[in-house]
Amino acid sequence: MRLRHKPWAKEKLMQYPQYVIQNPEEKKGKWRNVFNNENPIHIEVGTGKGQFIVGMGKANPDVNYIGIELQDSVIVSALDQLIEEELPNVKLLNFDGENLKNYFEKGDVERIYLNFSDPWPKNRHEKRRLTFKSFLKLYEDILINGGEIHFKTDNQGLFEYSLKSFSEYGLLLKYVSLDLHKSDFLDNIMTEYEEKFSARGQRIYRCEVQYQNSIQKTEVLNERMSE
Amino acid sequence: MRLRHKPWAKEKLMQYPQYVIQNPEEKKGKWRNVFNNENPIHIEVGTGKGQFIVGMGKANPDVNYIGIELQDSVIVSALDQLIEEELPNVKLLNFDGENLKNYFEKGDVERIYLNFSDPWPKNRHEKRRLTFKSFLKLYEDILINGGEIHFKTDNQGLFEYSLKSFSEYGLLLKYVSLDLHKSDFLDNIMTEYEEKFSARGQRIYRCEVQYQNSIQKTEVLNERMSE
Repeated sequence: MRLRHKPWAKEKLMQYPQYVIQNPEEKKGKWRNVFNNENPIHIEVGTGKGQFIVGMGKANPDVNYIGIELQDSVIVSALDQLIEEELPNVKLLNFDGENLKNYFEKGDVERIYLNFSDPWPKNRHEKRRLTFKSFLKLYEDILINGGEIHFKTDNQGLFEYSLKSFSEYGLLLKYVSLDLHKSDFLDNIMTEYEEKFSARGQRIYRCEVQYQNSIQKTEVLNERMSE
Repeated sequence: MRLRHKPWAKEKLMQYPQYVIQNPEEKKGKWRNVFNNENPIHIEVGTGKGQFIVGMGKANPDVNYIGIELQDSVIVSALDQLIEEELPNVKLLNFDGENLKNYFEKGDVERIYLNFSDPWPKNRHEKRRLTFKSFLKLYEDILINGGEIHFKTDNQGLFEYSLKSFSEYGLLLKYVSLDLHKSDFLDNIMTEYEEKFSARGQRIYRCEVQYQNSIQKTEVLNERMSE
């Protein structure tokens, strides 16, 4: 994404603490208090301008959403939408997704969305891909047991890599579409990037994977061996 | 595949017992004797006219191949190629792939190829797809520990289904390409069907999955938990 420098962005983000969480370390394990309800929490790592997370918040009032984006000149567009829509169930974090464990403890989050993450195509940058095993471990450390990652991208190489990485980590593939916009998946909310690239005829790839604990895995094996 | 009736096919297949195994039940557990060597055995379920299995046999003389195809009027074309090429490391079985366990015992086979299998797109026909869980169990019962399935298809729906089915069964995804003919996979041998459909611009999907025993799985889990 091309960044336009907005020197006023940081200040604006601080003026709306009801939408932009200023001190997320203090919310760790206490996010129910932030939203004043017991609804599940879904987060998006790399929220960009926020079209996805705001759209999801509008479509699903019974889910709490947190969009995380490091670039203040980008996330400020998400804030503008929240101000206009006055959504109580969407919050923003202007912090680095790599530090998720500072803001969330195990079980705080039910689902993680990764949308059009940077593909980092060079092999030597593998560790930076948000589906690299160290990130899958990071997500596991904040998700509930049986938590899910919902992932979409237009980058074929990143999708192929991610399917392998998920499998190696032992995640269960629950849903996969190799051409989302021609599929029967009706609840898709597009990101800004997705709108632009799919309009050019680019295929969108999407999958849902689920963490399994060792007990579930052993059950699958026992079931299979007893057949 | 459209079938042309060839009343003479059955008879011709019986005239070449050096290429077409007549009594595979008797070879169960003794395939080393058929090939007179200790090389690994790879089988293709649904060999069709045999371009793939014959091409593989020529390219890899240190591997033994067995092509299995129920339709005699189709597999007879594979026989014609074998007669011409005089390949000692390729054999044919004119039998139903559903009865694999009659011909092979656990450990007889190192790898199974599934190429452009019938997609059976209707939900009620799921059980007929060669990547349905009952077939994955059947393959496990004849493969070595750590054996592999190499699967390719041009059918997007079948590929999506199969990725999920492999994952649910606990198979490890070792390789995946969502556009094989534009990938860096150099060792591809095309089937007749693949040549025709890829020439029309159809994408070819391909993956390799590996069976894991429970010890391997536990190791992965332990490794992850100790990180």
